[in-house]
Amino acid sequence: MAQGIMRPLRPVWIADAATVVGHEEAAGPLGAYFDLHDPKDDTFGQKTWEKAESEMQRLAVNTLLGRAGWQDGEIERMFAGDLLNQCTGSGYGLLPFGIPYFGLYGACSTCAEGLALGALIGGAYGGRTVTVSSSHNCSAERQFRYPMEYGGQRPPTAQWTVTGSAAFLLTDDARDCKKNAPRIAEVLVGISVDRGITDANNMGAAMAPAALDTVCRYFSESGREPASFDGIFTGDLGAEGSSILREFARAAGIDIADVHEDCGNLIYNAAATDKHAGGSGCGCSAVVLGGYLLDCLRRGEMQDILFIGTGALLSPMSVQQGGSIPGIAHLVRITTKEDAE
Amino acid sequence: MAQGIMRPLRPVWIADAATVVGHEEAAGPLGAYFDLHDPKDDTFGQKTWEKAESEMQRLAVNTLLGRAGWQDGEIERMFAGDLLNQCTGSGYGLLPFGIPYFGLYGACSTCAEGLALGALIGGAYGGRTVTVSSSHNCSAERQFRYPMEYGGQRPPTAQWTVTGSAAFLLTDDARDCKKNAPRIAEVLVGISVDRGITDANNMGAAMAPAALDTVCRYFSESGREPASFDGIFTGDLGAEGSSILREFARAAGIDIADVHEDCGNLIYNAAATDKHAGGSGCGCSAVVLGGYLLDCLRRGEMQDILFIGTGALLSPMSVQQGGSIPGIAHLVRITTKEDAE
Repeated sequence: MAQGIMRPLRPVWIADAATVVGHEEAAGPLGAYFDLHDPKDDTFGQKTWEKAESEMQRLAVNTLLGRAGWQDGEIERMFAGDLLNQCTGSGYGLLPFGIPYFGLYGACSTCAEGLALGALIGGAYGGRTVTVSSSHNCSAERQFRYPMEYGGQRPPTAQWTVTGSAAFLLTDDARDCKKNAPRIAEVLVGISVDRGITDANNMGAAMAPAALDTVCRYFSESGREPASFDGIFTGDLGAEGSSILREFARAAGIDIADVHEDCGNLIYNAAATDKHAGGSGCGCSAVVLGGYLLDCLRRGEMQDILFIGTGALLSPMSVQQGGSIPGIAHLVRITTKEDAE
Repeated sequence: MAQGIMRPLRPVWIADAATVVGHEEAAGPLGAYFDLHDPKDDTFGQKTWEKAESEMQRLAVNTLLGRAGWQDGEIERMFAGDLLNQCTGSGYGLLPFGIPYFGLYGACSTCAEGLALGALIGGAYGGRTVTVSSSHNCSAERQFRYPMEYGGQRPPTAQWTVTGSAAFLLTDDARDCKKNAPRIAEVLVGISVDRGITDANNMGAAMAPAALDTVCRYFSESGREPASFDGIFTGDLGAEGSSILREFARAAGIDIADVHEDCGNLIYNAAATDKHAGGSGCGCSAVVLGGYLLDCLRRGEMQDILFIGTGALLSPMSVQQGGSIPGIAHLVRITTKEDAE
C-alpha cells in the first residue's frame, strides 16, 4: 500500500542506547535511568549553551560506542538532528566521529525520524547505524523565545524544553545485542498536518492533529487494537496535546486512553509546576525512550510499544510572519516479541 | 566494506525533475533549462522572502507531479530540506502535499543527501519518492549575513546564494520513466570534515576538504579513474573551493581537473562579477542537476557522472562563537549506462 506501514527487510535491533541529561531531568522521576548528567549548571564544561548541547551529543555517542567497544570505522552511518538553527548541535557535536553522516530536521520528532530511517536503511543494507538527537533548555529558550536573563512569563500550555541527548545503536547482527534487545518492527512516516494553530506557546495543540493522523493511519491499516500494545508513547505533546489526541482519537473510534502516555508527561515530577504542560524538545522523547522505555522492554515489563515522535515544524520567523504551525508525527513500533508481525 | 559505496538493491531511476529559479538564474547561461521563473522580483507572489522560498518548493513539486499526472497518494515519501532556520522553506512549502515527509538538513548538500536516501530507500522498499530542496538569495542573505537593505560589501571569495528549487521524482518502476532516464547507481555518504576555516565568506575553502575526502574515498574503493566519467560535478564549491579541491586531489594522486566542474561556476555568467566566487545554496546544485545535467544525460551527451553535493554545517551563531566551519560532501553516481557497476 502506498504511503503505508513499512517493515525493515531484515530484523534491526536497538542494541543499546546512551543518554545524557541536565540536572533537572536527572532529579526527575526517570533520573535513575539516564547514563550521564551535569550535576551543576548544564554547561557540560562549555562556554555557551550551544556548545553545551553539542557536547551532550558527543558524550552520548562516545558513551554508546565506548560501552560496546566499537571504533568509528565499525559504524556504517549516523542520522542526527536537533532544534538549533542549521542543526549545529549535531553538526559540531558529531565532528569528532569519522562516521558517514545524514543530517535530519524533524523538530521534536527527530529521534523517531532517525530510528525510522536507521531501521529501514540498516534493514536493507546492513551494518551498524547510530542515531542521535538533542535539545538544551537554554539554547532553545534564547533561540525560540527570550534571552535567558529576561525571565519571560509562560502560559500554562507552554512546554519546557528538555536538556538531553540520546544516541541509539541499531544493528542487523544479533551478535551485537545483549539478551532481549528490542527491534524496530514497523515504521509509519508522518504526514505534515496544519490545523491553523498560531499560538507558539501551545505546541501540544499544534502537534496533536499530526499525531492523530498517524495513529488513525496506523490502526486503520494494521487492523490492530490499541490494547494489543503495552503502551503508545507520544513525544512530546505534553498535557495539553495529550488530552486533545485522546479525545479526537476516541471520536475517530480509536480509544487509546488506557495505553497512551506522553514522554513530556513522564520526564518531570507532576508537582514541578514550572514545567507547565510538560517536557518537549528533540531530547525529551529521545532520553525517555533511550533511558526508561528500552529498560522496560529489556526487562520484559513491556514487550510491544508504539513510539510516536511528534514535531512542530515552525520557526520564530514563520510565527512572526503570521504562519500557523504545522505538525508531524513519525511512528516506530518497538518490540521484543519474536513473532510480532 | 563498512562506510563504503552503497548501491540501491534494485535500480532506481530519476524519472523526472522540475526546476524553479529566480530572474537572475533564468538570465544565466543555463536559463533555458529551467521550468519556471519569476520574471519580475523573485517574490513568487508572496509577501516575504521566506514565503517566496516555500512557494518555490510548492511550485517545483506541483510541476513535477502535474507533468506526470500523479496524485499525492501515488507518491510513497518525500525527502526535503533548505537553509532556513528550522527548515521552514520545506516545512511550509510542502504542507499542501499529503505525502509522508522526511525533513533533512545537509546545508547546500541537501539535494545530494535527498537523492542518496531516496535511492537507497526506494531501491529497497519500492515506490515513488520525491526529493526537493531550495534556497532563496534574499531569505538567505538576511538570515546568514545582513538585512537586504544594508547592501553589505562582499569579498571575492564570497558566493552568491542561488534563488532556486528543484524537485526530483525517483522510481523503481521503469514504466514511470521516459526513454533514457538516468538512474542512481551508487551512493557514498559524506563524513564531516573541519580543517579550521573560520571565514564565513569563504565557504568554498571550508567545504573543499570534505569534497576531497569523499573523492578520495570513492576512487580508492572503486578503483576507477576520474577519466572514466563524463563529468564530476561538485556543488557548490565556487571558484575558490574548486581550485582547492583540484589541487589537493592532484596531490593525493587523483587528477580530476579535466572532468571536474562545479555547479556554482556553471549557473551564472562568468562576466557577472557581482556573483564573486559563484553560486551556492541548497537550490544551486539542485537546479543545475535537475535542469541542465539531467538533460545532458537524457540526450546522451553524458552517460555517467558523479554528482557531489557539498554543504557547510555552520550557523551565524556558531561563527559568532568562534567555531570553525565543518563541511560535508555526499556523492551520487548518476548514469544511463545499462551495465554500469
